Amino acid sequence: MSKKAIVLLSGGLDSATILYMAKDQGFKPYGLIFDYGQRHSREIDHARRIARAAKCEAKVVHFGMPWLGSSLLDKKQKIPTRKRIKPHEIPSTYVPARNIIFLSFAMSYAEAVKAEAVFIGANAIDYSGYPDCRPDFMKAYQTAARKGMKAGVEGHSIKIYAPLIKKTKAQIIQAGFKLGVPYEMTWSCYRGLKKPCGDCDSCLLRSKGFEDAGYEDPALS
Amino acid sequence: MSKKAIVLLSGGLDSATILYMAKDQGFKPYGLIFDYGQRHSREIDHARRIARAAKCEAKVVHFGMPWLGSSLLDKKQKIPTRKRIKPHEIPSTYVPARNIIFLSFAMSYAEAVKAEAVFIGANAIDYSGYPDCRPDFMKAYQTAARKGMKAGVEGHSIKIYAPLIKKTKAQIIQAGFKLGVPYEMTWSCYRGLKKPCGDCDSCLLRSKGFEDAGYEDPALS
Repeated sequence: MSKKAIVLLSGGLDSATILYMAKDQGFKPYGLIFDYGQRHSREIDHARRIARAAKCEAKVVHFGMPWLGSSLLDKKQKIPTRKRIKPHEIPSTYVPARNIIFLSFAMSYAEAVKAEAVFIGANAIDYSGYPDCRPDFMKAYQTAARKGMKAGVEGHSIKIYAPLIKKTKAQIIQAGFKLGVPYEMTWSCYRGLKKPCGDCDSCLLRSKGFEDAGYEDPALS
Repeated sequence: MSKKAIVLLSGGLDSATILYMAKDQGFKPYGLIFDYGQRHSREIDHARRIARAAKCEAKVVHFGMPWLGSSLLDKKQKIPTRKRIKPHEIPSTYVPARNIIFLSFAMSYAEAVKAEAVFIGANAIDYSGYPDCRPDFMKAYQTAARKGMKAGVEGHSIKIYAPLIKKTKAQIIQAGFKLGVPYEMTWSCYRGLKKPCGDCDSCLLRSKGFEDAGYEDPALS
């Protein structure tokens, strides 16, 4: 029986890439998708489609964050364009403790199905500056989970893999094309419109990534 | 303006006690209650009632854990009686990563409303042996949250208070009576019946606590 991994799927290109990386490393992937009131809830359908394409079972966890605290949740706030974000500023699209919450559900799922790994597409190079995407957070979270979970206490703790964390967007895309990631199915835009807006942080990181990688973005053709 | 604290409320006696402790320490409490498919969902109403009694605003976060992995979620499993649990065994009522998930939502809520503290009623003395109730987990989780959150990065990290962690159940009850905790409103039983069963782990810890403290349990009269 192959080893199992929970893979956090957002519908974006990073998480689609790690799904194919997990498979490539011999893991049987279990997708985990979140419906948390994000204004770009369109990404949920994209995540489901990507999971189906990869023949990966996927579960959706639904929850609300009634305190909002982010322009990604609060429709009264505007999504900032890239040029409106100051250098070193954590932008308003930051969702308080989002990856902490996502990882916590993933660890729970992993423990319940006896998976030995959790894959997360966090990236700390071409990213929006969110603190919960950085290596020292991942390391500290791994320690906390080991101490707080039955699996950890019993000596078979669940390992967190963040294989993209030190890669540029271009490197991610190049690796993904080699693995056959269906980038045409991915969605990155923070705005919940019918087409990607092209000027939010996420759209710009994506288009620059494809440009630097030397590929056309198949989602735009 | 008084300092704010998020208080995790389960409807049980430990969390009711920390709500009154937080108030006693000058915090304005914001209750946080979880509806996560627990078979003893009756506790949610108790938590709401306790919050109202303490004049504390409370939010309920609803989510499912479709992977179950606990007799507290899976109605096909039996809740073990105390005598069926071996010493040093983590019982089947353990919910994978539950306090990790609860704390993560609490930290998110805290950051969104600019609270400086999160209170959790975890106890590592008269408890069911869950690893996510122990001091070294709390410490490691605090570190992870500091590294992964905007508040932490900006130097005003949210402090986790677990004031009961090294207290016996009798000490908790004695402290609570002094603070006027309405124990008659609390619910501890793991079984979702109309009355407490009296022989699950949680009922037994509770009745022993009242006995050792020298009080009648007001919920039973």
